[in-house]
Amino acid sequence: MSSESEPANNEECLGWAARDPSGYLSPYTFTRREVGIDDVSIAITHCGVCYADVVWTRNKFGDSNYPLVPGHEIVGIVKQVGGSVDGFRVGDRVGVGTYVNSCRDCDFCKERLENHCQNGSVYTFNHVDADGTITKGGYSTFIVVHQRYCFRIPDAYPLASAAPLLCAGITVYAPMMRHRMNQPGKSLGVVGLGGLGHMAVKFGKAFGLNVTVFSTSTSKKQEALSRLGADKFVVSSDQQQMKALANSFDFILDAASGDHPFDPYVSLLKTAGVLVLVGFPSEIKISPANLLLGMKTISGSTVGGTKDTQEMLDFCSANGIFPDIEVVPIQYANEALDRLINKDVKYRFAIDVQSSLK
Amino acid sequence: MSSESEPANNEECLGWAARDPSGYLSPYTFTRREVGIDDVSIAITHCGVCYADVVWTRNKFGDSNYPLVPGHEIVGIVKQVGGSVDGFRVGDRVGVGTYVNSCRDCDFCKERLENHCQNGSVYTFNHVDADGTITKGGYSTFIVVHQRYCFRIPDAYPLASAAPLLCAGITVYAPMMRHRMNQPGKSLGVVGLGGLGHMAVKFGKAFGLNVTVFSTSTSKKQEALSRLGADKFVVSSDQQQMKALANSFDFILDAASGDHPFDPYVSLLKTAGVLVLVGFPSEIKISPANLLLGMKTISGSTVGGTKDTQEMLDFCSANGIFPDIEVVPIQYANEALDRLINKDVKYRFAIDVQSSLK
Repeated sequence: MSSESEPANNEECLGWAARDPSGYLSPYTFTRREVGIDDVSIAITHCGVCYADVVWTRNKFGDSNYPLVPGHEIVGIVKQVGGSVDGFRVGDRVGVGTYVNSCRDCDFCKERLENHCQNGSVYTFNHVDADGTITKGGYSTFIVVHQRYCFRIPDAYPLASAAPLLCAGITVYAPMMRHRMNQPGKSLGVVGLGGLGHMAVKFGKAFGLNVTVFSTSTSKKQEALSRLGADKFVVSSDQQQMKALANSFDFILDAASGDHPFDPYVSLLKTAGVLVLVGFPSEIKISPANLLLGMKTISGSTVGGTKDTQEMLDFCSANGIFPDIEVVPIQYANEALDRLINKDVKYRFAIDVQSSLK
Repeated sequence: MSSESEPANNEECLGWAARDPSGYLSPYTFTRREVGIDDVSIAITHCGVCYADVVWTRNKFGDSNYPLVPGHEIVGIVKQVGGSVDGFRVGDRVGVGTYVNSCRDCDFCKERLENHCQNGSVYTFNHVDADGTITKGGYSTFIVVHQRYCFRIPDAYPLASAAPLLCAGITVYAPMMRHRMNQPGKSLGVVGLGGLGHMAVKFGKAFGLNVTVFSTSTSKKQEALSRLGADKFVVSSDQQQMKALANSFDFILDAASGDHPFDPYVSLLKTAGVLVLVGFPSEIKISPANLLLGMKTISGSTVGGTKDTQEMLDFCSANGIFPDIEVVPIQYANEALDRLINKDVKYRFAIDVQSSLK
């Protein structure tokens, strides 16, 4: 880790923080580090609401540090740059995703897969940064970040829409690219139609894939087909439909975080097919024969490196891919988290920080 | 499936068959199909003893057809060829593995991955062949096979040693090649030191890998290091040793058929590392975080296609790789299967069919 920060200045940052495992968010004032020579300071305009915000505000993993300012789908306008910053200028439209530091020296960092930094990437909130401070996220007025972890938001791409790309978008884009699912004609199954899943459908259609959405209920059928443009919708409990699709998918993107059986989906993969899990169920259970006989694969994936993230942002802009968002004020944050838990959002909240956090 | 067989001729084939789920083997006389224009008839000299022989003689999967002649690691000498056979001549040293037919027309067959034939490959025993007969394996005096499923045993390579390559050998060779584990310096973990696992160690060393053997007891340590040439031996219950190896393996070949935890091994994989399962435990259970955070992969694999099988035989010959075998007469077959169940063999039985089955 390189630490180029100076002692915190006096500019106050206003955020909304959880103070305890109730996760209840309320206004909180703190300072951020001085803008270092390689740093960019960003006036935050919007921040997406990710399930990670629920996990850590409510201490689900037992490692939450309070007060905790969540948010890692951050977009805004550059308001100050350090002396060595060459990639950004004041006024630029930029984004910050799920990590804000890494060693910048290991093999993974060298390949711009900083999310897999061998010395540990520093998450955007609730994580110890190189200077020993605990990172604080995007439910706040500004953030100071090393320019390497800062992305250009293409001109004319709405900032609010860009926010969910920084976690939900890259989380599905990266494994699709890694497994060469950008080849037209291939078949994609999407399990779990939330923030991540709906982006997988959009990327799938942009890549020219044949996209099938799997859901536990018919309630999302119309939306999946008409609004998101999926080719097919299957209720996963319909065994006849599931059986008819056996061995027909090149790739399944499993974004379901609730516990669910895996064998029915692995059975849908073609020989040598791949299921990538991006959700967080409590356990994976598979029948060995289901993997062995068709040399099938289950892989995990989380977000992506800085190279892929910038590429994804540019791809979305070039191809007119926009997440479906519901823009809400910061005062709605607690309700937004509750609704996210209840899967009552189509498909991502974006907090309008600039207009509502003052 | 193409069926070029003629009505069975009168030449009797003597085999050893199981008659019921006791799996007890005893002499059994039957006929094989006439040698078709593309067929090769092989006088069997040796047949390896695979765990599949236990599975099907004892009806473990509930689909056994009795009388059942097991054996799918077959080597011998060509004794007759059909009119269109161009690859083999009488007197050639040849082998037959786990399948004896496929459609020869699907994408997988065209790529010489006949084991994944989309219309279903025909297994060497206990399977319905294109002509409706049930296939009978290599615990017998001869076999008639389409030349496509017949392999050249390189000159000077001992036939008895070649037998285990046709299932155990290709089962570990194919996934190692598929995952580019023939690159010197990579790290290989081998779980389960039996017929398959000991071949993985040998291939690993031939490829220039750093090979670690994992076992449940120290009893195999000396052998693994001295006899097989592994670089390291770890008792999997030694949590300190396991912890010290976290994130250090490019690839783990899991050949353990007994039930065992997967998370401890997945934790040993580097970021983007791969665990390939070739054993048949009853269930795979993994913690999602263990797969997700390091974009790790679990894949299944079974045997390999005809192209890889021939390549593997040639590689073993060129590099002096020989399975460790215990040659036994056919009269010892029942005891051999019992000892295999008890893991009491180093590391593969090869039945000397030619000398003992008369």
